[in-house]
Amino acid sequence: MATALIILAAGKGTRMNSDLPKVMHEVAGAPLFAHALASGAALQPERAVLVVGHGAELVGKAAADLDPEITIAVQEEQLGTGHAVAQARPALDGFDGDAIVLYGDTPFIRTETLEAMAAERASGADVVVLGFEADDPGRYGRLIVKDDALERIVEFKDASDEERAVTLCNSGVVAAKAQVLFDLIDGVGNDNASGEYYLTDIVEVARNKGLTARVVTCDEAETLGINSRAELAAAEEVFQANARDEALENGVTLVARDTVYFSYDTVIGRDTVVEPNVVFGPGVTVESETRIRAFSHLEGCHVSRGGVVGPYARLRPGAELAEHAKIGNFVEIKNAQIEEGAKVNHLSYVGDARVGEGANIGAGTITCNYDGVSKYHTDIGARAFIGSNTCLVAPVSIGDEAMTATGTVVTKNVPAGAMAVARAKLEIKPGLAVKLFATLRAAKARRQKGS
Amino acid sequence: MATALIILAAGKGTRMNSDLPKVMHEVAGAPLFAHALASGAALQPERAVLVVGHGAELVGKAAADLDPEITIAVQEEQLGTGHAVAQARPALDGFDGDAIVLYGDTPFIRTETLEAMAAERASGADVVVLGFEADDPGRYGRLIVKDDALERIVEFKDASDEERAVTLCNSGVVAAKAQVLFDLIDGVGNDNASGEYYLTDIVEVARNKGLTARVVTCDEAETLGINSRAELAAAEEVFQANARDEALENGVTLVARDTVYFSYDTVIGRDTVVEPNVVFGPGVTVESETRIRAFSHLEGCHVSRGGVVGPYARLRPGAELAEHAKIGNFVEIKNAQIEEGAKVNHLSYVGDARVGEGANIGAGTITCNYDGVSKYHTDIGARAFIGSNTCLVAPVSIGDEAMTATGTVVTKNVPAGAMAVARAKLEIKPGLAVKLFATLRAAKARRQKGS
Amino acid sequence: MATALIILAAGKGTRMNSDLPKVMHEVAGAPLFAHALASGAALQPERAVLVVGHGAELVGKAAADLDPEITIAVQEEQLGTGHAVAQARPALDGFDGDAIVLYGDTPFIRTETLEAMAAERASGADVVVLGFEADDPGRYGRLIVKDDALERIVEFKDASDEERAVTLCNSGVVAAKAQVLFDLIDGVGNDNASGEYYLTDIVEVARNKGLTARVVTCDEAETLGINSRAELAAAEEVFQANARDEALENGVTLVARDTVYFSYDTVIGRDTVVEPNVVFGPGVTVESETRIRAFSHLEGCHVSRGGVVGPYARLRPGAELAEHAKIGNFVEIKNAQIEEGAKVNHLSYVGDARVGEGANIGAGTITCNYDGVSKYHTDIGARAFIGSNTCLVAPVSIGDEAMTATGTVVTKNVPAGAMAVARAKLEIKPGLAVKLFATLRAAKARRQKGS
Repeated sequence: MATALIILAAGKGTRMNSDLPKVMHEVAGAPLFAHALASGAALQPERAVLVVGHGAELVGKAAADLDPEITIAVQEEQLGTGHAVAQARPALDGFDGDAIVLYGDTPFIRTETLEAMAAERASGADVVVLGFEADDPGRYGRLIVKDDALERIVEFKDASDEERAVTLCNSGVVAAKAQVLFDLIDGVGNDNASGEYYLTDIVEVARNKGLTARVVTCDEAETLGINSRAELAAAEEVFQANARDEALENGVTLVARDTVYFSYDTVIGRDTVVEPNVVFGPGVTVESETRIRAFSHLEGCHVSRGGVVGPYARLRPGAELAEHAKIGNFVEIKNAQIEEGAKVNHLSYVGDARVGEGANIGAGTITCNYDGVSKYHTDIGARAFIGSNTCLVAPVSIGDEAMTATGTVVTKNVPAGAMAVARAKLEIKPGLAVKLFATLRAAKARRQKGS
Repeated sequence: MATALIILAAGKGTRMNSDLPKVMHEVAGAPLFAHALASGAALQPERAVLVVGHGAELVGKAAADLDPEITIAVQEEQLGTGHAVAQARPALDGFDGDAIVLYGDTPFIRTETLEAMAAERASGADVVVLGFEADDPGRYGRLIVKDDALERIVEFKDASDEERAVTLCNSGVVAAKAQVLFDLIDGVGNDNASGEYYLTDIVEVARNKGLTARVVTCDEAETLGINSRAELAAAEEVFQANARDEALENGVTLVARDTVYFSYDTVIGRDTVVEPNVVFGPGVTVESETRIRAFSHLEGCHVSRGGVVGPYARLRPGAELAEHAKIGNFVEIKNAQIEEGAKVNHLSYVGDARVGEGANIGAGTITCNYDGVSKYHTDIGARAFIGSNTCLVAPVSIGDEAMTATGTVVTKNVPAGAMAVARAKLEIKPGLAVKLFATLRAAKARRQKGS
Repeated sequence: MATALIILAAGKGTRMNSDLPKVMHEVAGAPLFAHALASGAALQPERAVLVVGHGAELVGKAAADLDPEITIAVQEEQLGTGHAVAQARPALDGFDGDAIVLYGDTPFIRTETLEAMAAERASGADVVVLGFEADDPGRYGRLIVKDDALERIVEFKDASDEERAVTLCNSGVVAAKAQVLFDLIDGVGNDNASGEYYLTDIVEVARNKGLTARVVTCDEAETLGINSRAELAAAEEVFQANARDEALENGVTLVARDTVYFSYDTVIGRDTVVEPNVVFGPGVTVESETRIRAFSHLEGCHVSRGGVVGPYARLRPGAELAEHAKIGNFVEIKNAQIEEGAKVNHLSYVGDARVGEGANIGAGTITCNYDGVSKYHTDIGARAFIGSNTCLVAPVSIGDEAMTATGTVVTKNVPAGAMAVARAKLEIKPGLAVKLFATLRAAKARRQKGS
């Protein structure tokens, strides 16, 4: 069955205490709504509709960046979840498949759960509602089930004592044939305390029409919704705990398990060792048998087999390390290919560059890639030796097996095998340091006396 | 009612296993006694007396640095808490208000608690003792209350089984009219196993004089006293947990909640994002909508709205970032104004300086502020472009929209719009690198053969 | 009684999901088998035999590096623990003392426990088995004891309900006279489901021969064996928690207890303060009254009394700091003596060097110790002043109280009291920056138009 996702992402999130719309807050380096979208992607949906409201423009743009085929539906007024789903109707006009309603602030629904919902639909249920057994059901809505059929969803405040004793709770996630869903919503009223159209009311409407509703259950943890920054921080911790378990399971060593931070899309190969205090931003893949040393920070980069990174290395987007490349301490690499076995060991900035196979970049080397207006490329050949404190003024190229002398500012291309030197004559002035110190100290004493 | 604080800070803290007096050990960047002082400050006291003993000079000096108006009273011998309080008597001679006794090793008493004690005094109790309901009362002294009146404080070892069953325990914090307090202490003896004068005994003395004593209660956590480094570490964790909750509540995003360390006085604005592994030392204020990236370390500095700091940025005391200033990786800023939109992105040291609006400081820039004897100022104008690896030998100024060439050592002022260049001629020597490598390798081979 | 250790280290550790043999995975910077070896070292054994199998060569080499006197016995096929112990027989041919069998994947057995086993042997037990009371005995083998004698060890799957109710479990650690142990193993068969020779079966064989077996117990935590990376990570956490407690007990302040990582051999003196996020690799000793600031990384180095390290300092092997030396931010020190009161405050690399007493190393200083082929030494005299961005091209020496000018590349020795300067003439070109910016902007505009 073809599937469409409807993701509700219109809420303000007042309790976030933020100017940013709630679904733009991030877990594991991705906005909350993107996690819901990623959950739904497991169903290989033909369409995805994001219903936005607060910060509609910002959310819409972020969504389009993530998935150019997503449809944005704007809910001008927030009149309840039923009303929000109804905003997706024009986008799904004539769509002859299923719709599944997800929430932009609920990042942890698992693939298996959505597949179970789809299976339940396939087996004949007209409406499928996702529920969970709550340890402490509190004020959640309760799912009232009889003979395998969902009879209705009762809000806590409307529930009888007997109903409140039920521990099967409503997650809000719903699946149905798209056109059936919209028709059911048409039957929902707003005659309640909030004056809102509740999506949950479709169950009663469905039963009145003789349609069947059933429940699929998931772990309570999957339905965790984010309403405050404390909950956001807690969600991050849940994500990280799972990601760490998964990395360990995959044969990655985490020396200090709780100090490694992953992003939603981090990939780390087997027999890689990650030392304490490492942060993986979005877009990182690390191959097998590498070592990511302490205090390293990686974003948008690739580290090949046998690489060594850090401590205190920062790999920025576009850093591509080939096998056995080595990036050392206080080094920043940006948009640069570091070819096989090349080394940048200390205190350097290599940006917009290629560093050839086996090249050695001395301490304090800087690729001067920016002239205040534009950025330019630096090309360093295989087995080149860049002396300490070399400045490579881009655009510039250093040939294979070429060398630069310590402290040289390189403003012209250096051919293969050549040496570039720019150095002022060294003068040694006997006794001058002693004299100078004496003068400086005397001057200081005078100043202090004068003040 | 005018109030005086009496803070007992004379103890050695043998279990700390330290040469430092106990109250000088720090929580959240401030010595323990300063936390007690800060708690008491909520009562807007007219006077504060710190009773010191072990390490009297050191503690006294630290206290005077914090609050020049504090009075130091030295307890030469440690003869008990009653004796300690008595040392404050000369300092409060003729003082016609209340005294409240706090402890220099008990950092978490809340303002509300002290206000409740003051209110109880105002409502007529002659002596007010702070108690707490203990989950596990263990060997704490017990507060024996009858008909709302505190009858007496009984030490655990002197308590009957019935009294030991009481869970209301003594914190040691006491409030009374100052002169009454001292008179009561005069009535306290030292006829006990330790031969000490206990402050707690004033309750019995008071009742014998027909005065009333009452109890105000607080959370047990507020009365946590520090006696070992393990307890100090635990107190730090309590402080940090509270500070993180408060930050989240105030609309700050902490990406990795448990990796952010605050000081006692850190202020962070709404919609600021703090990435993993950030340390805020004392004296930091960060405005709204900034981003403090991973592995940053800030002390005594100010970051204005829209600023971006880090990763791996160190802001030292006197760093003042104006709006939208940006400090990047492996950069140290000390005693410097970074004006609006200015950028110091990589591997630089900027100290004792001004960086003008919109200026761009290249990678590897160093303000040479120290000549071995004195320190000097560097002034960089608006929209100046400082080339990579520039050394600015202070005192020196770079005019607005001026430029320095890569690798220049600037020893003279550069006027607005001018370019400063100091660069040796670049020579490219064909084939020399190859020859040099061959020579070096041959020499190495000879050395190895010889050895 | 002379003692020999037999350490079983032949397992593959399938659940580690690793190409590395299980016992080569590390806790606290040392491979697992080294922890077992260190436990056993408390008995001052005359001999140590490591039984290796999977990755025999790698494990054998690592063991020989740690302890050149260790004997390696190779178990070609893994036919059970009894078979593994039998491989040690040739190495202990004629050895007339006790043997104790330890496990290379069980790092936490305490000295006191092994001493208790030795004492039990001395008091007449022929075979001593280490047991533990399990909170949840699960599928552990049970020790069936009657009248102080160990009757037998029963595997869970063979145990009766009554036996399963026993909570005294088998750790696998065994002590006996070496030759008795081997004789007992000769009596063990492999008639079981796995077709393996179990060491545990020696208890039954011993009883049949009329020998006595007794049990010594330890904490369950000591017997923690490592079978997966999750267990490895958990073991690391156990180690760190203990090491932190011990440091606090010894009078070290850990500002953020859970963010400090120790190695198996870290030594930190009293009244040293360790700030948040510090990693101590192997081989570090830090004396009393030093301060290790946040984000520092130390390996194989020594910090003397009064030293200050960090934040963001990296001390690599061979870094030796004398009293009151100071290493600041973004500084790497390798194989270098930093003498009393010397300072390397910012953004420097000092490797293969001596920095004399009271010398001051300016920001951006680099010891150019590598010419692409060999490494050389740099010697800096007492009270020398190295200007910012100085490159010291080794081998080179700077005399006492000598100076180098900012940005100088030093290629010759500088005598005491002399000044070394190499600097191109500074030219100030009025208006050139403005013109240059205009040109660059125009060129960019043309390129953008063209593209």
